[in-house]
Amino acid sequence: RINSDRLWDSIMEMAKIGPGIAGGNNRQTLTDEDGEGRHLFKRWCEAAGLEMGLDEMGTMFARREGTEPDLPPVYVGSHLDTQPTGGKYDGVLGVLGGLEIVRSLNELGIKTKHPIVVTNWTNEEGARFAPAMMASGVFAGVLDQADVYSHVDKDGKKFGEELERIGWKGAEKVGDRKIHAFFELHIEQGPILEDEGIDIGVVTHGQGLKWLQVTLTGKEAHTGSTPMPKRRNAGLGMARVIELVHEIAMDYQPDAVGAVGHMEVYPNSRNIIAGRTVFTIDIRSPEKEVLDAMDGRIREGIDTICEALDIKYQIDQVGHFDPVTFDAGCVKAVRDAAERLGYTHRNIVSGAGHDACWINRVAPTAMVMCPCVDGLSHNEAEEISKEWAAAGADVLFHAVVETAVI
Amino acid sequence: RINSDRLWDSIMEMAKIGPGIAGGNNRQTLTDEDGEGRHLFKRWCEAAGLEMGLDEMGTMFARREGTEPDLPPVYVGSHLDTQPTGGKYDGVLGVLGGLEIVRSLNELGIKTKHPIVVTNWTNEEGARFAPAMMASGVFAGVLDQADVYSHVDKDGKKFGEELERIGWKGAEKVGDRKIHAFFELHIEQGPILEDEGIDIGVVTHGQGLKWLQVTLTGKEAHTGSTPMPKRRNAGLGMARVIELVHEIAMDYQPDAVGAVGHMEVYPNSRNIIAGRTVFTIDIRSPEKEVLDAMDGRIREGIDTICEALDIKYQIDQVGHFDPVTFDAGCVKAVRDAAERLGYTHRNIVSGAGHDACWINRVAPTAMVMCPCVDGLSHNEAEEISKEWAAAGADVLFHAVVETAVI
Ligand SMILES: NC(=O)NCCC(=O)O
Ligand SMILES: NC(=O)NCCC(=O)O
Repeated sequence: RINSDRLWDSIMEMAKIGPGIAGGNNRQTLTDEDGEGRHLFKRWCEAAGLEMGLDEMGTMFARREGTEPDLPPVYVGSHLDTQPTGGKYDGVLGVLGGLEIVRSLNELGIKTKHPIVVTNWTNEEGARFAPAMMASGVFAGVLDQADVYSHVDKDGKKFGEELERIGWKGAEKVGDRKIHAFFELHIEQGPILEDEGIDIGVVTHGQGLKWLQVTLTGKEAHTGSTPMPKRRNAGLGMARVIELVHEIAMDYQPDAVGAVGHMEVYPNSRNIIAGRTVFTIDIRSPEKEVLDAMDGRIREGIDTICEALDIKYQIDQVGHFDPVTFDAGCVKAVRDAAERLGYTHRNIVSGAGHDACWINRVAPTAMVMCPCVDGLSHNEAEEISKEWAAAGADVLFHAVVETAVI
Repeated sequence: RINSDRLWDSIMEMAKIGPGIAGGNNRQTLTDEDGEGRHLFKRWCEAAGLEMGLDEMGTMFARREGTEPDLPPVYVGSHLDTQPTGGKYDGVLGVLGGLEIVRSLNELGIKTKHPIVVTNWTNEEGARFAPAMMASGVFAGVLDQADVYSHVDKDGKKFGEELERIGWKGAEKVGDRKIHAFFELHIEQGPILEDEGIDIGVVTHGQGLKWLQVTLTGKEAHTGSTPMPKRRNAGLGMARVIELVHEIAMDYQPDAVGAVGHMEVYPNSRNIIAGRTVFTIDIRSPEKEVLDAMDGRIREGIDTICEALDIKYQIDQVGHFDPVTFDAGCVKAVRDAAERLGYTHRNIVSGAGHDACWINRVAPTAMVMCPCVDGLSHNEAEEISKEWAAAGADVLFHAVVETAVI
């Protein structure tokens, strides 16, 4: 069993970097705070005798040597970046859970055949720069490195330049590593495990996702003196698309979700009809057919809405992954570990995207989930118990060590 | 007749201060650009022999002495502040039209019995600080000076402190002036005059307005892993209120308009369901009963929407004026002037709010309107012709001089 106090203390220590305003964290990717969090993680890794690698996407790879160094390593980890109003556990639990495995192995004097590499993937959240799971996407060969380097945040800053600025752009070519297996521990971010009183989610599948960034162009005009029939209101258009996305998601739920969380309004003045709006639709489903059907209905609906309002539209897909089926062997390792340790468990589909979803395309991969209070995540009030964290890390420990072979 | 070239040149000169990005202006109230515009206006006034007064709200009063200095002056003017993406004429035409009257009187060697005061009212637009027509509202005793000093912009900066910062807070108590009559020339900001090919709008009434700032509070949560029935989506709530406002306005149009131009979303991340939204509803009607009925239906509708979505709401009225009936004598002076000068004219209701609407409560007031291209305003592409401007200023000239008595 891992040391649950040590794991918890590390999580709390990390949470001091980039504190939020309501008990959570704002440690968005490639900010100074992200840099500070990376330094802390690096110090801990070095203290545990790990050797740090860093690739051109800024992903950190902390290696514990195996007794057979030429065998491909077992990877374990997640991400340290957070949402602007994020929690203390989303991502962090998986990285520090990986570190805790190594600390426990050191303490117990256990050597594994395969090396073990604890990983912090860059920009998992996709809050500052779309898309989410950016570095793991490049690693898996699905995203283009030169392309994502050019992506900009709201202030127009480029991903590539910000990565250099914080000093965490490595020299290692991305995706050049051989991975024996990858395991990621993560909080569920949904309510199922807590509702059913279950310790461990054995993640068998992941939902697919599309992010559609929509730009509506109407005409700025005076809210008082412009007659109703003369308006070309891009704000009203946005409102109708938001409702459309909701209605379509409701038609397919519980096999789908959909919402708009990001919206920009120009010029955003009380007495100006919006001339332009930019917003991102987030739709997800575990079924590829459902995701595609939603996408089609949304595009059709936007066309109809814009025609009625005499506004123009542009739709850019800024994020996409198909539903994922995790590796049967790795999933079994997770289930067996939970069983062996006496934790209650059930199969579960991940509602969120994870680095594991991309890595699954290039290496056998699985995930361990633990409950979170009220299913709440992407909220500073995100909460878990020390016991939940410990159960998750224990299962991760056994699954990883079993796979890395003693 | 006034000198239309001189008027036009002055408008173009003023437009160089705080240029927009698309040919218009961004000279929002109490910015450095506003300060620069004021300096230019002051220099022009001094060159025309006027004496500048400045009150505690920053309103500028440039006085041309009358032959009977103890008579209350005739006031003429509008505002020099603009929207963030405003045009070159909204407000500016009225101030510089007033200046042009004085320049013409000087040139013609005409003296009036009543002094004439050319006025630049502070913060007419209400874009940076709500409400609109702020300084004229305080002057008319409808708004409280200490209260509006405390109003903040999006960056949390206070109106009172920004007024001091740009150096345009005067010592004169607000509202202490006796006004014989007030005339304001303004572009229509709507399509009626241009559509009908008419030179001059004789403004008999002004629409009433309400600005309702709505705050919706739901719960931040993950867009992917939060089941649809568990969501408390403040973004969806905002979308429904925007549609509600539109539907209600459509029910009452052409006797009403309604829209939402200002929206803020928190935390505004692609994969977070909005936990909070703040937006401002703008509804207007020339009929007080219609305005009140809309207000009632909107409040009821918000209650129903929020109950269905399990979100909380707060409604703050951040702007309000009742419909206005301008002074019969002043309106007649405008109509007679148009008639005498041979301009085509018609009675018109102002769709926008104007400083004249507040001053009408404390002094006989009327407005002159000239057409604008496509009825477009609060848009950088706002346009008028030199001839339209000249006709408006001519009518203003005759109405003012008639009232100030030669
Ligand atoms: N786990 C997580 O919140 N990832 C961010 C990407 C997503 O929106 O699913
Ligand atoms: N004239 C004008 O645009 N005034 C601003 C106040 C309003 O929104 O009507």
